[in-house]
Amino acid sequence: MTAAPQALVFDAYGTLFDVHSVTRLADTLFPGRGAALSQAWRTKQLEYTWLRSLMGRYDGFDVVTADALDWALESLRLEAGAAAREALLAAYRTLSPFPEVRGALEALGRGRPLAILSNGHPEMLDAVVDHNELRVFFGERVLSVHAAGVFKPDPRVYALATATLELPAEAVGFVSSNGWDAAGAKSFGFRAYWVNRAGAPVERLGTAPDAVVADLAGLAGLLGG
Amino acid sequence: MTAAPQALVFDAYGTLFDVHSVTRLADTLFPGRGAALSQAWRTKQLEYTWLRSLMGRYDGFDVVTADALDWALESLRLEAGAAAREALLAAYRTLSPFPEVRGALEALGRGRPLAILSNGHPEMLDAVVDHNELRVFFGERVLSVHAAGVFKPDPRVYALATATLELPAEAVGFVSSNGWDAAGAKSFGFRAYWVNRAGAPVERLGTAPDAVVADLAGLAGLLGG
Repeated sequence: MTAAPQALVFDAYGTLFDVHSVTRLADTLFPGRGAALSQAWRTKQLEYTWLRSLMGRYDGFDVVTADALDWALESLRLEAGAAAREALLAAYRTLSPFPEVRGALEALGRGRPLAILSNGHPEMLDAVVDHNELRVFFGERVLSVHAAGVFKPDPRVYALATATLELPAEAVGFVSSNGWDAAGAKSFGFRAYWVNRAGAPVERLGTAPDAVVADLAGLAGLLGG
Repeated sequence: MTAAPQALVFDAYGTLFDVHSVTRLADTLFPGRGAALSQAWRTKQLEYTWLRSLMGRYDGFDVVTADALDWALESLRLEAGAAAREALLAAYRTLSPFPEVRGALEALGRGRPLAILSNGHPEMLDAVVDHNELRVFFGERVLSVHAAGVFKPDPRVYALATATLELPAEAVGFVSSNGWDAAGAKSFGFRAYWVNRAGAPVERLGTAPDAVVADLAGLAGLLGG
């Protein structure tokens, strides 16, 4: 057993914040179609981050998120007025954290710095962190891919965290509910903790996470306080 | 109206060859689940090409395709023996072309070279081209991303075609049923023709195709023989 990581870096959307809390709003706007819209939107949002990165056409996550929403609405033949569209996009600023997040961060942050590293546009990220009063855990260590001009899992993104923490990759634990993000972090050199909230199969990407937990409480149990 | 392109480059899977012809075999092996397996497999296969490219962990399309199949089977809780798994993977070597392909290639190939540029492993590509007796249209211009060590839509992939054809990008037309591939080709500098077989919404990736057609017969009508 190696020593516990000296710092922990968290993905935001899906890991700390429940992206599908947007589903409730979507279902109010489009009764019975909220889950389908939320799913199509999220899938396309990720696709666009990967495709724009490979094409060398980075644009902010706010733009990508709006583009993905427009695609998803058209794909499902849903008509959204300007107000509904704005409400759905604004929901990203007030996403709810998963219920165990606050308690787990309190335990995991004892004696080690915590950081966020997210695809989110800096302004979107700051909004959701402050809305949920989670700034106390992260201080200024709320990092966006925006500074690298490319999205995850490009290694230049993960290097933002080692630069800010002034630690070698192997001393840092990276925590994500996205299996592919955990794989990218592991490939970069981090210790990777996959929060497999959905009970999904492990991703076949040539790496394996150091540990798999069901939620952040499970990670707190693993790494202690 | 600019002059017609001096050469045409075709995507293979989904554009010339019907990937979902695998669905029939899958449905024989897993009655009632063939469509779900085929869809999950194809989605994950593309995801893995993008993720491995961004991670700098390229591996051949044969490996990625097998990995994606294993993920999809586990995700759907389907148990495949070694023989079923091998049969599904081997199906990529004998995919059927769409019905209009041969006639359209005859018209489109009059007076201009045709090429294939595909994510496929060279050996997989040669097999499906020869199985369907399409070599006459392409000769040695069956190009795989394998030579670039990265998948579409990385611009280094599209550069393989300009190098082989010895033409500037703007003289080349690129044909794909995948909206994101057409966007990547357009971003590289090709003229992009999107074969929107599925009637999908246009991808929001900061570029627009030069033309959208329903199938390759539509492209032959547009570009003449």
